[in-house]
Amino acid sequence: MPQKPEILEARIVAKSRLFTVEEVQLRFSNGIERTYERLVNKGQGYGAVMVVALRDARTAVLIEEYCGGMDNYQLSLPKGLVEPGEDVLDAANRELMEEAGFGAQRLEYITHLSLSPGYMSQQIAVVLARDLYEKRLPGDEPEPIRVDSVDLYALGELAKQDNFTEGRALAALYLIRDLLEQRGELQR
Amino acid sequence: MPQKPEILEARIVAKSRLFTVEEVQLRFSNGIERTYERLVNKGQGYGAVMVVALRDARTAVLIEEYCGGMDNYQLSLPKGLVEPGEDVLDAANRELMEEAGFGAQRLEYITHLSLSPGYMSQQIAVVLARDLYEKRLPGDEPEPIRVDSVDLYALGELAKQDNFTEGRALAALYLIRDLLEQRGELQR
Repeated sequence: MPQKPEILEARIVAKSRLFTVEEVQLRFSNGIERTYERLVNKGQGYGAVMVVALRDARTAVLIEEYCGGMDNYQLSLPKGLVEPGEDVLDAANRELMEEAGFGAQRLEYITHLSLSPGYMSQQIAVVLARDLYEKRLPGDEPEPIRVDSVDLYALGELAKQDNFTEGRALAALYLIRDLLEQRGELQR
Repeated sequence: MPQKPEILEARIVAKSRLFTVEEVQLRFSNGIERTYERLVNKGQGYGAVMVVALRDARTAVLIEEYCGGMDNYQLSLPKGLVEPGEDVLDAANRELMEEAGFGAQRLEYITHLSLSPGYMSQQIAVVLARDLYEKRLPGDEPEPIRVDSVDLYALGELAKQDNFTEGRALAALYLIRDLLEQRGELQR
């Protein structure tokens, strides 16, 4: 493992309701100094979670909602912030109920995925949810979310659609397909 | 396709060297109004590219570098910004030469992946690079980058490592494995 650069100084250079930008002065182990910026999402203090919920052996739940960043409707996985005092599996189940109208009898933590490690510390937990039942909790969404689904063996086709682009959601789906195949719980 | 919310107002609320945060007032088609924030990365005006470079039929190049957001060293794919006037395939090849010391005789655009479509418009092109040869171009990195590799059939194991977390890089690797399998160019 290489020797980490020394942080000479860190200060906040921009701030909004949701985001804080920190400017960091670094000295690498070879003496070279650089100024980096990193972004902190203030809403994410307790973490975030993304759910791969299986409706049957090979079909995962997707949701479609308006995405402010891209200014269009995109398909993705149910996801959201972990609330104070909440377990990551409970948060996954709550988001699944709020966004997709399902609860899960079986929840399993898989891994954490980062967004853009060069600029952000932000990571999202990936949770596998199985044995679903219908259960809706009211969420804070401004309009009803459309629920859709994808065959775990049609992820390449899904990625070709203009309304599915989110890298970490695609990674979570592939990862779970791979894991279930390795365990002998899924066959092509 | 649902009717998009109307943007009532958009204004910049925070700004740093790299990032701009815009606050957007939206009115959804059901009349509900919300205030969203979206983040613009000013460096990405010409786009960005991520390269899956195959050293042989099933081995992809990885690089390890210091990630300011997570304040540690992470493995990921070679990637970077497209320069003004540069083609996305040329940018992929240049980044591969700068970061990993390889050029590619065969480059193929695969898709675009988004980062966090709820908050950012940012997308990255995924390029498949094959028929590699040794060629190093000087980059702007503060210290030498360690070059590593991964077997396309060991992605689940890779995702378990603490020093590999980036969702979109994992998605790009799985996507290309899937694509090559479907084309009959890769066998387990």
